[in-house]
Amino acid sequence: MNRKIILVRRPNGLPLEADFKLISEPLVTSLSIGEVLVKIEWTSVDPSQRVWISKPKTYFASISIGDVIPGYSIGIVVQSTVSSLKPGTNVLGLLGWQEYCCVDYKKLLKIPSVTRPSVYLGALGLPGISAYIAIADLAKPQGKEIVVVSSAAGTAGSIACQIAKIRGCVVVGIAGSDEKCDWLLNELKIDSAINYKKHNLARKIAEVCPDGIDIYIDNVGGEVLDAVLLNLKKYARIVMCGAISAYNYKKAPSVSNYPLIISMSATVIGFLVDDYKKHFLIALKSLGKWIKEDKIKYKEHMLYGLESAPLGLSMLLKGENNGKVIVKLSPPIEKI
Amino acid sequence: MNRKIILVRRPNGLPLEADFKLISEPLVTSLSIGEVLVKIEWTSVDPSQRVWISKPKTYFASISIGDVIPGYSIGIVVQSTVSSLKPGTNVLGLLGWQEYCCVDYKKLLKIPSVTRPSVYLGALGLPGISAYIAIADLAKPQGKEIVVVSSAAGTAGSIACQIAKIRGCVVVGIAGSDEKCDWLLNELKIDSAINYKKHNLARKIAEVCPDGIDIYIDNVGGEVLDAVLLNLKKYARIVMCGAISAYNYKKAPSVSNYPLIISMSATVIGFLVDDYKKHFLIALKSLGKWIKEDKIKYKEHMLYGLESAPLGLSMLLKGENNGKVIVKLSPPIEKI
Repeated sequence: MNRKIILVRRPNGLPLEADFKLISEPLVTSLSIGEVLVKIEWTSVDPSQRVWISKPKTYFASISIGDVIPGYSIGIVVQSTVSSLKPGTNVLGLLGWQEYCCVDYKKLLKIPSVTRPSVYLGALGLPGISAYIAIADLAKPQGKEIVVVSSAAGTAGSIACQIAKIRGCVVVGIAGSDEKCDWLLNELKIDSAINYKKHNLARKIAEVCPDGIDIYIDNVGGEVLDAVLLNLKKYARIVMCGAISAYNYKKAPSVSNYPLIISMSATVIGFLVDDYKKHFLIALKSLGKWIKEDKIKYKEHMLYGLESAPLGLSMLLKGENNGKVIVKLSPPIEKI
Repeated sequence: MNRKIILVRRPNGLPLEADFKLISEPLVTSLSIGEVLVKIEWTSVDPSQRVWISKPKTYFASISIGDVIPGYSIGIVVQSTVSSLKPGTNVLGLLGWQEYCCVDYKKLLKIPSVTRPSVYLGALGLPGISAYIAIADLAKPQGKEIVVVSSAAGTAGSIACQIAKIRGCVVVGIAGSDEKCDWLLNELKIDSAINYKKHNLARKIAEVCPDGIDIYIDNVGGEVLDAVLLNLKKYARIVMCGAISAYNYKKAPSVSNYPLIISMSATVIGFLVDDYKKHFLIALKSLGKWIKEDKIKYKEHMLYGLESAPLGLSMLLKGENNGKVIVKLSPPIEKI
């Protein structure tokens, strides 16, 4: 049998356990040509899942009621129709919150034996690739420019902070707890970290960056975006990667300071990583090198058992996680 | 004597007559080397004046209480210390709402004998140059792209519409009266015109542009911007030229649909014409050619007497003008 988590009701605000259902179904065993059966070992919890389960025709693509929750997962091939992906191969793909996935081999990426899944679901996964492209290809920092990153202790945010540091920028992270700020300052060695829950954010940014900011990597939108807009330097670049403050609501929290985009001759670039597939290889090369050199650090927040995934998503949306949220499916592969 | 209009109080909302004062002062007659005395014949009323008289450190630069209201003006040199600008020369410059201006000759542009002042204060002035750069250099339309222009019957807006038509685009104008919409459709021959006061704007745009819009030239901000955001096509470009809906308020009317900038991979470019001085000559060359060929039409809304300028500004901010607002100073130059 395959166990999987499906959407039974679109969440109204923060997702609740009752919005999801864990169901069992017979395991597919007869594969078509080109298909591969993967036993999933780890699956990822990401802010984008909140978007995918929202009503269709809002901001982003979404799934239907009854669909398995999409999610990047790491697994091992257990049955195959293609010679390039033999049973036992480690693979990565958008396989969903489930124990097994029968999938076209072209949608899988072969990866080495996995010791820390957060590498492939985080720093070398879409969050890391997104952070790289946002900084290196879109914001394009020059010298000691001032870079502000929101959701800075999040997976993509923390990697963006570190890439900006590697590029020689002055980096200011915005996060939602003192613990997260301490990690950003002491472990990631960024220049300043602001707990937005403890300050008038616009004033605090002005204090930390009295000459304004050059680059803003926005993962949040809403009030945080509005506060940053008040502190733009002339010719500032804003890369809008996400708007997590909006995901739980029908209408996003509003912003009012957009006229400063005009007066500061700023540019706002809306960024969806899917549009930049041609940039992935170069991004992965740099990210891989930096991870090897220990220049990019990351944390895992591991949950156990497929059934814990919905809880992980709520936790993530409340900012209560402490590192990349990953669900380790049980029983472990060794015991099958 | 010189008569001039100064700011005596910063407006709270729509400017009132009591925010301004018409005063007289002795005329400067002893010029320093390089200075020129200009008798002003026409002075311009523009949305930017509302910004300049606002509290400092809001969105844009502003003047001090007691300062003459800045404004582009056309005049004639009556006294000069430089051989290149002899008395009798027609000039254009930021000379303010006053009868005479003593000014450094480098700040003046020599122009031919003026028959229609709206050419140099509108189509060949900063509004026209802004419209050209916004379309040609920033939005860069390709083929039959769909271009939406707000404040489309305004000076910059109407020229933007016509440039987009010349460039082969499908042009949709948003304006505030049926009369303005009729002018856009019948005189400027744009493809569609929407009276935003009569429709649910987001729905009306969706009806007129069922596949979404490629380019938005924004002069308004606020609700109009929010409605356009709901109708972006993938890779849309928004050039933010102005935010007239915000100018009368301490806080601009908010927008909520900015997450669509992400999902549509859109780009927002904040545009201040002052940053693009290097583009002026090329813009003027094209604009001059199109005006000669009668491809760019424009309207003048003439007011008479310096004292009518503040009223002209209120009228403009309420959208009650019908063409480029220009104040003809009296008595006419011939009678001095």
